[in-house]
Amino acid sequence: MSTIKDVAKLSGISRSTVSRVINNHPYVNEEKRIRVKAAMKELGYVPNSSAQRLRGSKTKTIAVLISRIVNPFFSGLVDAMDSVATEAGFQLILCNTRGSKEREMTYLNLLRTKQVDGVVFASIENNWDDIKPYLAYGPIVLCNEYTDQTDIPSFRINHFQASYEATLHFIKQGKTRIGLCRGDETIGSNLGSDREKGFLKALQDHQLTFNEQWLFRNATNFNDGRHVFQKVERMSERPDAIFTGSDEVATGIISESRNSSIHVPNDLSVIGFDDQQIADVITPGLTTIRQPIQKMGEQTMQHMIHILTNQTSLIGHTELLKTELIVRGT
Amino acid sequence: MSTIKDVAKLSGISRSTVSRVINNHPYVNEEKRIRVKAAMKELGYVPNSSAQRLRGSKTKTIAVLISRIVNPFFSGLVDAMDSVATEAGFQLILCNTRGSKEREMTYLNLLRTKQVDGVVFASIENNWDDIKPYLAYGPIVLCNEYTDQTDIPSFRINHFQASYEATLHFIKQGKTRIGLCRGDETIGSNLGSDREKGFLKALQDHQLTFNEQWLFRNATNFNDGRHVFQKVERMSERPDAIFTGSDEVATGIISESRNSSIHVPNDLSVIGFDDQQIADVITPGLTTIRQPIQKMGEQTMQHMIHILTNQTSLIGHTELLKTELIVRGT
Repeated sequence: MSTIKDVAKLSGISRSTVSRVINNHPYVNEEKRIRVKAAMKELGYVPNSSAQRLRGSKTKTIAVLISRIVNPFFSGLVDAMDSVATEAGFQLILCNTRGSKEREMTYLNLLRTKQVDGVVFASIENNWDDIKPYLAYGPIVLCNEYTDQTDIPSFRINHFQASYEATLHFIKQGKTRIGLCRGDETIGSNLGSDREKGFLKALQDHQLTFNEQWLFRNATNFNDGRHVFQKVERMSERPDAIFTGSDEVATGIISESRNSSIHVPNDLSVIGFDDQQIADVITPGLTTIRQPIQKMGEQTMQHMIHILTNQTSLIGHTELLKTELIVRGT
Repeated sequence: MSTIKDVAKLSGISRSTVSRVINNHPYVNEEKRIRVKAAMKELGYVPNSSAQRLRGSKTKTIAVLISRIVNPFFSGLVDAMDSVATEAGFQLILCNTRGSKEREMTYLNLLRTKQVDGVVFASIENNWDDIKPYLAYGPIVLCNEYTDQTDIPSFRINHFQASYEATLHFIKQGKTRIGLCRGDETIGSNLGSDREKGFLKALQDHQLTFNEQWLFRNATNFNDGRHVFQKVERMSERPDAIFTGSDEVATGIISESRNSSIHVPNDLSVIGFDDQQIADVITPGLTTIRQPIQKMGEQTMQHMIHILTNQTSLIGHTELLKTELIVRGT
């Protein structure tokens, strides 16, 4: 690879002048500038971006933290963010935390070591107290996730309300033994606990009691859904409906029910979350809460780029996006 | 953020010595080293990685080029690569080309400008002649994709053979009017044309003729599958089987057939590609070619990291992974 020295040699111009041309320094003789540019072109010389970065401290790179890229919710979010980022000349570093606190902190260090300009959290594993100090190194924006420990911007839906609405749909259909699936418990996030609160509030408002046995924890993917169904099968007192909080979990339940005498939806109603492609394709069609995934990803990235471009402040801009109950067969 | 100057001031040690400590220079008095380290810790000083990078020219970052992250095939590949990369202390930059030649070249420039150490192509848009010059800047490894214009390493399946096998399955079932879906035509890749050759060879070996009308081009996702079915519906002479080359396209066909008198599989058999989750969940279950997606992603990344770690050569290591026909209902 050619260096500044090579450019200087070929153009017959001093290295310091070559350097000024590369850095767009204003006080360079026009004729010399043309000779340097010609030599750069001939040699295929590319300014070392690490060197340029060192001066400007801008990487044009944004880290996006998600827990699992194979969840269509996250790949959809990343796709939407990527669209906006690329359009604005930024690139994304994909940070697949796999739900690990340690991996999350490793990725967060990219901000501290100036390898990225900003960080988007679409999933959170650590307590906010441990994340907060990193705000000194650059902007952090939340997407999907949130916590009452901070008021930094978050682009998300109202999980309490969506969960209340799903539960209410069951109640209106005459269901009385309603269960709930939750994801992993993460100390840094209010998402799961708000969903549980919305669910319990709907039961309470309609004088229904909740059987603790029907709360299924750590249910996040297709196989978890299959296991939830197997547990239900073994129960003496079974739920007649489950709000799964996830299309993948719901799909696992429906799929597993096919080998059983318990029929979905006659014996067991199911509501998912997201409205992924599979919800429309599976038989029976999955009733689910539609999240505006694309809009959420786009707005998050637009906000991040706005902050980075204008060096504006971060505080107090939380955007609540609308959800919609999509009623299908389950 | 604190600087070397701050560390020098707090420790009472000269900036040049502080700099030597940061760079692990051997000739530093041990007592001074301890004082500098203590000051660095107290100030939360982090060496600027761009500066460090400039010396070592190592970013510990690998670019992965895919055409569409929302395709579960690609998110599965990226997930597998990410596992291996993280384990080895590398991170991935996600490069979602969206099938654009220009975006592919922009991403490839990350190698030239030393923002990444290596590039993995899991999809290729440009002609190899345009990609080849970038080998001067760092290693390139192919995954899934390949072209006869180069013998650089590729971890992939035999697409000719897989396609031949799928077509043969139709023929054995007595199908005689067999159609084919192809993805976008990309000049730099042999994948699509090899699949077409395998398909045509199977027909030829069994004295079946091919109706050009039953070749559906640019079919890569769910909606494309729906459109393929709509076209079939309007034909006077219809195919009795289609090798879709994609679970997403096949799913679109099955989904659309539900609103039609043309029954899958009685009137129209379908075979997909990949064996994604949806193939097992949709009704009827989708017969498909299973690709070892996880293994393909892992082996690719292991090879890339091996090259980067040992500075070994790139040439001549193409790994052909096994596929399997999974027979279900379609």
